[in-house]
Amino acid sequence: MQTHKVGIIMNGVTGRMGTNQHLYRSIAAIIKSGGLKVSDDEVILPDPILVGRNAAKLQKVADGAGLPAGTLKITTSLDTALADKNYSVYFDAQTTDRRVASTKIAIAAGKHIYVEKPTATNTADALSLWRAAKKAGVKNGVVQDKLWLPGIMKLKQLIASGFFGQILSVRGEFGYWVFEGDTVTPQRPSWNYRKEEGGGMAVDMLCHWRYLVDNVFGNIQAISCLTSTHIKTRWDESNKPYPCTADDSAYATFELDNGIICHFNSSWCVRVRRDDLLTLQVDGTKGSAVAGLRDCVSQQYNNTPRAIWNPDIDNPLDFYGTWSKVPSQTTYDNAFKIQWELFLKHVVKDTPFRWSLLEAAKGVQLADLGLESSAKRAWLKVPQLD
Amino acid sequence: MQTHKVGIIMNGVTGRMGTNQHLYRSIAAIIKSGGLKVSDDEVILPDPILVGRNAAKLQKVADGAGLPAGTLKITTSLDTALADKNYSVYFDAQTTDRRVASTKIAIAAGKHIYVEKPTATNTADALSLWRAAKKAGVKNGVVQDKLWLPGIMKLKQLIASGFFGQILSVRGEFGYWVFEGDTVTPQRPSWNYRKEEGGGMAVDMLCHWRYLVDNVFGNIQAISCLTSTHIKTRWDESNKPYPCTADDSAYATFELDNGIICHFNSSWCVRVRRDDLLTLQVDGTKGSAVAGLRDCVSQQYNNTPRAIWNPDIDNPLDFYGTWSKVPSQTTYDNAFKIQWELFLKHVVKDTPFRWSLLEAAKGVQLADLGLESSAKRAWLKVPQLD
Amino acid sequence: MQTHKVGIIMNGVTGRMGTNQHLYRSIAAIIKSGGLKVSDDEVILPDPILVGRNAAKLQKVADGAGLPAGTLKITTSLDTALADKNYSVYFDAQTTDRRVASTKIAIAAGKHIYVEKPTATNTADALSLWRAAKKAGVKNGVVQDKLWLPGIMKLKQLIASGFFGQILSVRGEFGYWVFEGDTVTPQRPSWNYRKEEGGGMAVDMLCHWRYLVDNVFGNIQAISCLTSTHIKTRWDESNKPYPCTADDSAYATFELDNGIICHFNSSWCVRVRRDDLLTLQVDGTKGSAVAGLRDCVSQQYNNTPRAIWNPDIDNPLDFYGTWSKVPSQTTYDNAFKIQWELFLKHVVKDTPFRWSLLEAAKGVQLADLGLESSAKRAWLKVPQLD
Amino acid sequence: MQTHKVGIIMNGVTGRMGTNQHLYRSIAAIIKSGGLKVSDDEVILPDPILVGRNAAKLQKVADGAGLPAGTLKITTSLDTALADKNYSVYFDAQTTDRRVASTKIAIAAGKHIYVEKPTATNTADALSLWRAAKKAGVKNGVVQDKLWLPGIMKLKQLIASGFFGQILSVRGEFGYWVFEGDTVTPQRPSWNYRKEEGGGMAVDMLCHWRYLVDNVFGNIQAISCLTSTHIKTRWDESNKPYPCTADDSAYATFELDNGIICHFNSSWCVRVRRDDLLTLQVDGTKGSAVAGLRDCVSQQYNNTPRAIWNPDIDNPLDFYGTWSKVPSQTTYDNAFKIQWELFLKHVVKDTPFRWSLLEAAKGVQLADLGLESSAKRAWLKVPQLD
Repeated sequence: MQTHKVGIIMNGVTGRMGTNQHLYRSIAAIIKSGGLKVSDDEVILPDPILVGRNAAKLQKVADGAGLPAGTLKITTSLDTALADKNYSVYFDAQTTDRRVASTKIAIAAGKHIYVEKPTATNTADALSLWRAAKKAGVKNGVVQDKLWLPGIMKLKQLIASGFFGQILSVRGEFGYWVFEGDTVTPQRPSWNYRKEEGGGMAVDMLCHWRYLVDNVFGNIQAISCLTSTHIKTRWDESNKPYPCTADDSAYATFELDNGIICHFNSSWCVRVRRDDLLTLQVDGTKGSAVAGLRDCVSQQYNNTPRAIWNPDIDNPLDFYGTWSKVPSQTTYDNAFKIQWELFLKHVVKDTPFRWSLLEAAKGVQLADLGLESSAKRAWLKVPQLD
Repeated sequence: MQTHKVGIIMNGVTGRMGTNQHLYRSIAAIIKSGGLKVSDDEVILPDPILVGRNAAKLQKVADGAGLPAGTLKITTSLDTALADKNYSVYFDAQTTDRRVASTKIAIAAGKHIYVEKPTATNTADALSLWRAAKKAGVKNGVVQDKLWLPGIMKLKQLIASGFFGQILSVRGEFGYWVFEGDTVTPQRPSWNYRKEEGGGMAVDMLCHWRYLVDNVFGNIQAISCLTSTHIKTRWDESNKPYPCTADDSAYATFELDNGIICHFNSSWCVRVRRDDLLTLQVDGTKGSAVAGLRDCVSQQYNNTPRAIWNPDIDNPLDFYGTWSKVPSQTTYDNAFKIQWELFLKHVVKDTPFRWSLLEAAKGVQLADLGLESSAKRAWLKVPQLD
Repeated sequence: MQTHKVGIIMNGVTGRMGTNQHLYRSIAAIIKSGGLKVSDDEVILPDPILVGRNAAKLQKVADGAGLPAGTLKITTSLDTALADKNYSVYFDAQTTDRRVASTKIAIAAGKHIYVEKPTATNTADALSLWRAAKKAGVKNGVVQDKLWLPGIMKLKQLIASGFFGQILSVRGEFGYWVFEGDTVTPQRPSWNYRKEEGGGMAVDMLCHWRYLVDNVFGNIQAISCLTSTHIKTRWDESNKPYPCTADDSAYATFELDNGIICHFNSSWCVRVRRDDLLTLQVDGTKGSAVAGLRDCVSQQYNNTPRAIWNPDIDNPLDFYGTWSKVPSQTTYDNAFKIQWELFLKHVVKDTPFRWSLLEAAKGVQLADLGLESSAKRAWLKVPQLD
Repeated sequence: MQTHKVGIIMNGVTGRMGTNQHLYRSIAAIIKSGGLKVSDDEVILPDPILVGRNAAKLQKVADGAGLPAGTLKITTSLDTALADKNYSVYFDAQTTDRRVASTKIAIAAGKHIYVEKPTATNTADALSLWRAAKKAGVKNGVVQDKLWLPGIMKLKQLIASGFFGQILSVRGEFGYWVFEGDTVTPQRPSWNYRKEEGGGMAVDMLCHWRYLVDNVFGNIQAISCLTSTHIKTRWDESNKPYPCTADDSAYATFELDNGIICHFNSSWCVRVRRDDLLTLQVDGTKGSAVAGLRDCVSQQYNNTPRAIWNPDIDNPLDFYGTWSKVPSQTTYDNAFKIQWELFLKHVVKDTPFRWSLLEAAKGVQLADLGLESSAKRAWLKVPQLD
């Protein structure tokens, strides 16, 4: 058995997503299972070092992984780690404002690059990152986890099997009620609602919708978006009121190059009467489906009820029972881990990996255009990036 | 008991809506119940005459009303009817393209006017109708039936009682799958899908959304709309294929002068996984509600589940059972009949009636702006009419 | 990290409540978790010594805590413990008749005081305890655990969010069937049913209702109470019959200074057909709620069914399904532990703590007045204490 | 077959209760079924004449009974009817303030008396009615319909069978939310909330509780009652606001001569989370039951769950599923009709009838005492009447 050890510098994994999804459920999980098998006699074994400013915090995160002592190294010096030839991959999950600078240093050091989204706070920076990586000839990728959610994978299975006929439209509903903090403790940190700290719904979610739509349905060619700050005052972690400066909802319509129309509502000020926190309803000539994070239901042409408008009587149709569940035909692994495995194979075996820093820049671009569209109250074309 | 007999010329009631809603369930129903009681000793008794081009068809419709023979008179001459002083009200439910001309003649004859929507195929004509009526000093009104749907009335009760706190947003979903006609018989006539015959989703539904939103939530001040003809070919009443020239879906966003954002999808190419053919989800700071045609469910602040994003496990929350039904606190009469009664009282007793031909023109205006917005890919202001 | 060690003399923790709630689930639990964090660099660490008459019993209780040997010290000499400067807090969970004397000695020794309720068998004694503590300048508190029951905290959330509109009335139902002991083993000790040993429903529960009502709904200004000894004979721990000399039920009505009327039934002779052993139904102008120990359901104005009296038909309304659960928006810690933590912070950091020995005296006062009201068959004013 | 024709003067049956319960569902129903069979060869046939001030209204009520024309006679002259020897019974369902005077005239005319409750607006008047009837030697009775509700009859069956062992206490909960009228139409007339028009909860319901308790559980010997006007403003039948001058809730405790304690809450300002609009929970040494209007559930000693107070865990007991339904062992007729039949037999066959005008006076007495108890904040003895 040949073991490909891949040294990975993990920068910024002390945040919630970094720790849980990238370190514990992805990299540590791969190590625990003995590495990622890529053929009958080859395995890829990650060898991570955690980088951060606070050694105590890093050690605590490392200790929580449940790995033998010494497996997870830590350092407070990014430079030292980058200088070490054992590490060929640089991963970045810092706050967005610090991503470009650190990653460019890593590119200059010749590391392969894998980073969280959004890759930058504006399109130009995101694009410069892609160009730097391309010029340096390093492999690169961006986290696009929602593509491997079980519900989305079931949608892709339906599409692949021709279930929908021609897809006509997609309705996305994302969000839930985030408590303000006066009487009920909020579920999300206060910086999410401060523009000056990188908060805001458009910045947060339009990146996701870009790769989700581009990958699953077709390329977005135009966007109209209206953002709003519905809740003007929230209470922070110390229970003090603060003014909300970032948008907490985004009402966006996309036109795809294949004529499909996508409408996506994203809101922290909505109560959920639908199947999940994110639902995508896809309507096609031969059938429709509604996917959530993990489940998906479908309604085929011949099961479509014959609806007739008659408000004088109680509606005789069952609008829920007429849909059928798409069963899980496989066990769905953690979405982050799946993408990590694809990236590691890409690095070691040069398998294809389409979720590059260029794709990342496209996500940032859509967020930028969304905010611009809202400010100008205008439809905007989505220019091609490269 | 004093009986106020009101002669009504009913033009174009051989169509489905005209026959069922206006004649049978409204005017004939009022006659059968002995007239509309307006005080302890006064009653309004409609005295209708049906006008149309085909006497046989008219007679068949009249016979189906279940009234004593002779109660429903018929004529193929609109002029004769208009000349008759016994008839003080003119009602028009013809196809839209014939409404303006006929109604203007009736105005000229001094009749009070009550008409189906849309009142014209463009804003200028609709406005000219309002101005003609105003100048002639005749009473006038337009059908805005959805305001009296039980589900909408429950929404209005919630608003009146302060349930929502501040309303933030409204999501409207309208539509269902209209079969194309090749393998399953369509539920709607083919002219609905031909632009040249007055068909199209924007023309059909934006009038409704205008008065619904204006009356229930606040004045629309700007619109962005994208229309599409998702299905390009349908089969007509003779089972012959025809090209669809009208839009069969409209994705519209409205901004209200009070800051509320409304997003309304209307589509004949969508399968229904929601509570009803039309649902309005209203989200406010203190609670949310989802209204259908007849039912309405609500979720108060303190019953709002604490949603947290965790795609690794099956969602533990019940997103349906956490809503409570708003019970019917009264018996809801037919929406068309309710508005007819309000109009008849307005004619006889001069009680207020805010759903005038000016309001009708506003509906046509929104449809015009919606189509223009879609063609220009632009947000448009909604100018004030008068 | 600065550690504030707080020595606590725990007197009388060999009883069921003392052992389980105060020692194991509160003090031992705080020690196990590394102490109570009060800021980023400060922690309070309890250092308890158990006092009692039976060393073997004390040791057994200490051993059951699951702490490292030696963590829990024991002594049979209260005087020795009080003389030790390491112990700044005195906690008393003895039987009520022994509380005043022991606690006064502890006050004289300059200890801070935290005690179980009722603090005395009569108002004068309870008040003298408060005055002694005030004069000595020691910090002091009384256990009022029901304020931190999850169900009550949900009620407080509903109140804070304005859910009820104006609160009109509160119906409390407490109790369950305590088996007599002849054929089924009783769930409670026999002294509870002997007046001469401090038993009785009024003495036991009116203290609770005092702080619950005062803290959550408003100040009690008058009481009418009727007590009864429904079951005259019970069987004791040795299966011998004994006459019940204490009341086993109390039917009390309170008038609050804000006009709210509270009616509380407390009974050991009732079978439970309600949501929990204790339920509080709160009715307000805008909504109602029923809270149990942990859960709470609510019914908003607009979900209130339209009840009409018609005994000729089976009732068509669902009187349970029309209520909605108030979800848990946080994890609820043990109520006793929460209050212990507040008291320890009060001792070390001088944070506010409103549940003083004066509040304790108010509880005893209500019990006294309840019994007097019952004996005199009279409404009684509740005089202000200080 | 011998037919006993009993002429009945029905005064005041144009009100809701008079028309529906007494005329249509009782007297007319008895006539339709061919009369009341009292033995194999005897039948009692009511022969009613309706008396009122408005002949048109009387005729409309008469026409609605579905009896052959002429069966129901009408008159606007009470004197004429009373002078007619064919009529031996006088029934009075007028508003309370008019009952005493009319009934005394009927007594003077030698008629047997059957009247609605309350029989008078004060005890003295009610008692004078009883004395007048007794002195005149006429048979007399008062409506006490709740005694024949199916749920109450099942309770009586449980008592008769010894199910409860010794009954200890009775908890009555009556009422529901009566809408104020601003946003939702009220279910009850506005006079119910005006003291000056005879409204008020105590006056309305304490009469019922008197005969219910006296007949089913034992004689009331003392009462403590607290009334309140929780809702200060309501909207009347013309949608105009008015101040509420009558009590809308009454919190009453009764002591019976057999030691049973009854607590009855009656309120129009309560939301229902219980089995029915009226529930009676009866707890006894051997079992408990909860009766509603039609249903009744019971829990026997040996099915009583072993409840233990432990707020740290979700309650493990099912407090509803452990009760068993008491099945309907017979078909329950309308409660009003049952009592009418008993009264008619009493008149014709001299069978016993314990619900006399003395019993009626006791009901009025309890209402009087309840209001006095509330005003004085005092327990009051219930003096014996005769």
